[in-house]
Amino acid sequence: MPIGKEVISEWFKGLQDRICSGLEEADGKGVFKEDQWDRVQGGGGRTRIIQNGNVIEKGGVNFSAVFGKAPEFLINQLKADENAQFFATGVSIVIHPSNPHVPIIHMNVRYFEMSGGIAWFGGGIDLTPHYVKQKDGEFFHQQLKVACDKHDLEYYPEFKKWADNYFFIKHRQETRGIGGIFFDQLKSSEKYSLEDRWKFVQEIGDSFLPIYTELMKRNRSSVFTDNEKQWQLLRRGRYVEFNLVYDRGTKFGLETDGRTESILMSLPNLAAWEYNFKVELDSPEQQTLGQLKKGIDWVK
Amino acid sequence: MPIGKEVISEWFKGLQDRICSGLEEADGKGVFKEDQWDRVQGGGGRTRIIQNGNVIEKGGVNFSAVFGKAPEFLINQLKADENAQFFATGVSIVIHPSNPHVPIIHMNVRYFEMSGGIAWFGGGIDLTPHYVKQKDGEFFHQQLKVACDKHDLEYYPEFKKWADNYFFIKHRQETRGIGGIFFDQLKSSEKYSLEDRWKFVQEIGDSFLPIYTELMKRNRSSVFTDNEKQWQLLRRGRYVEFNLVYDRGTKFGLETDGRTESILMSLPNLAAWEYNFKVELDSPEQQTLGQLKKGIDWVK
Repeated sequence: MPIGKEVISEWFKGLQDRICSGLEEADGKGVFKEDQWDRVQGGGGRTRIIQNGNVIEKGGVNFSAVFGKAPEFLINQLKADENAQFFATGVSIVIHPSNPHVPIIHMNVRYFEMSGGIAWFGGGIDLTPHYVKQKDGEFFHQQLKVACDKHDLEYYPEFKKWADNYFFIKHRQETRGIGGIFFDQLKSSEKYSLEDRWKFVQEIGDSFLPIYTELMKRNRSSVFTDNEKQWQLLRRGRYVEFNLVYDRGTKFGLETDGRTESILMSLPNLAAWEYNFKVELDSPEQQTLGQLKKGIDWVK
Repeated sequence: MPIGKEVISEWFKGLQDRICSGLEEADGKGVFKEDQWDRVQGGGGRTRIIQNGNVIEKGGVNFSAVFGKAPEFLINQLKADENAQFFATGVSIVIHPSNPHVPIIHMNVRYFEMSGGIAWFGGGIDLTPHYVKQKDGEFFHQQLKVACDKHDLEYYPEFKKWADNYFFIKHRQETRGIGGIFFDQLKSSEKYSLEDRWKFVQEIGDSFLPIYTELMKRNRSSVFTDNEKQWQLLRRGRYVEFNLVYDRGTKFGLETDGRTESILMSLPNLAAWEYNFKVELDSPEQQTLGQLKKGIDWVK
């Protein structure tokens, strides 16, 4: 029996609940506020925003399930019938911490189907440290590898490479952070049923909370300077550039008339740009820039 | 005799010089620093940045002249020969003032030609007040109308409408500011020679300095509160959204491998986003939002 879209979206709702509770507990101060919204053409979502916590400056954990007539760009892209209907549901997370030694994290898990037999999963998790810490990077990638390996030993290397290529700011010739995993259009295949794909996506969804709460715990008490805070704002500027210029989720949201405030919750409270900013030689900032490139092997 | 591209780019260089001198004089403290750069595939530019002045927090007045093999997207867009050569030159300006009562301004004047007989001018000036002042808006549009009317009485109404449509943040359903004029692909026609178009573009280029120095003078000494400063940062956030999501000049620059730091000088030093920010009823912020729409007639 095929899994139904209602089952999937209900599970995503539950995931949102668990992650929000877990983040509140880990933060110790911030509390999520919920906005429910409806999409005129069909569906809606639950946007949950946490602000001014002990660790989290601004974070969004969003659930949505939208459907209706497929927009023009989707019909063209997927060469679908002009009356095609689509359905998309998922959970999207971006967390901007206040302390520059705590990394920014992003996760998305999603399911998409369209009339004509299209049905697939997509998603990813990636980490954007303002200062790259070797041990945190290894931990992060190791945890993702463990989750992937339970399903297919080829998943981690393949999806890690995909993340390197996807989370890349072409005009800066640097990666957004230290990557993670990214995957899209995971359909039923000869090797895997859609149910198998779904189990994998659930695994990834469930891996978020233990990974990020550990990274919060490790770094939340690190002291930082004004210069490090300014560097954080500059790195956030790059995050804004990626999200507005390249991010497919943002584009998809804006082009399907999604709720703008929910889509752009990924943007930080405050971001900076400095013309032609140069890092100092042998500084931690320079070391970080040296690790914002593709192909770094974090799992030895 | 047709005007040559060398004549045009030399005039643009002179315009850059005059505008930089005039802005330094009006600011009284800030000084432009120049970076000359070369484009590997042909051409280059002179980027000039002013920072931390009395009035101007960050401003860029850029000249560039780039040429070479036309990139793929241009060839497709203009249905050109696959070996087509292009040439593009112009001056681009964005000024972010420190005082929220001084408006942000943008100007671009440019010339483009491509093998196969394509040759045209484009450009525009638009104003983005953090707080819309009726008199400043009227002055701004009136000055543009005067400049346009010297060349064609249809220019101002046509190009004003074009600006309303172009400087529009679709996902916010609001204009970037109070508009101005925008025009593109002004070619030689039955009515006008390319020389006529060029005289008009020079008129617009020369109108920038008297307009903006007047607006600086009027508002530079206005006192402001912390709340007004925060509102300025939020409006700058919208400016960032427009430039990274919609602005064709930014896209053209990034896609033709232009110099990223020169292209993104348009981004402010600091910008803010607040989830689902609501203005207070009958506040100056609400009044401003009420004027960020198309079709307002500023010239009575």
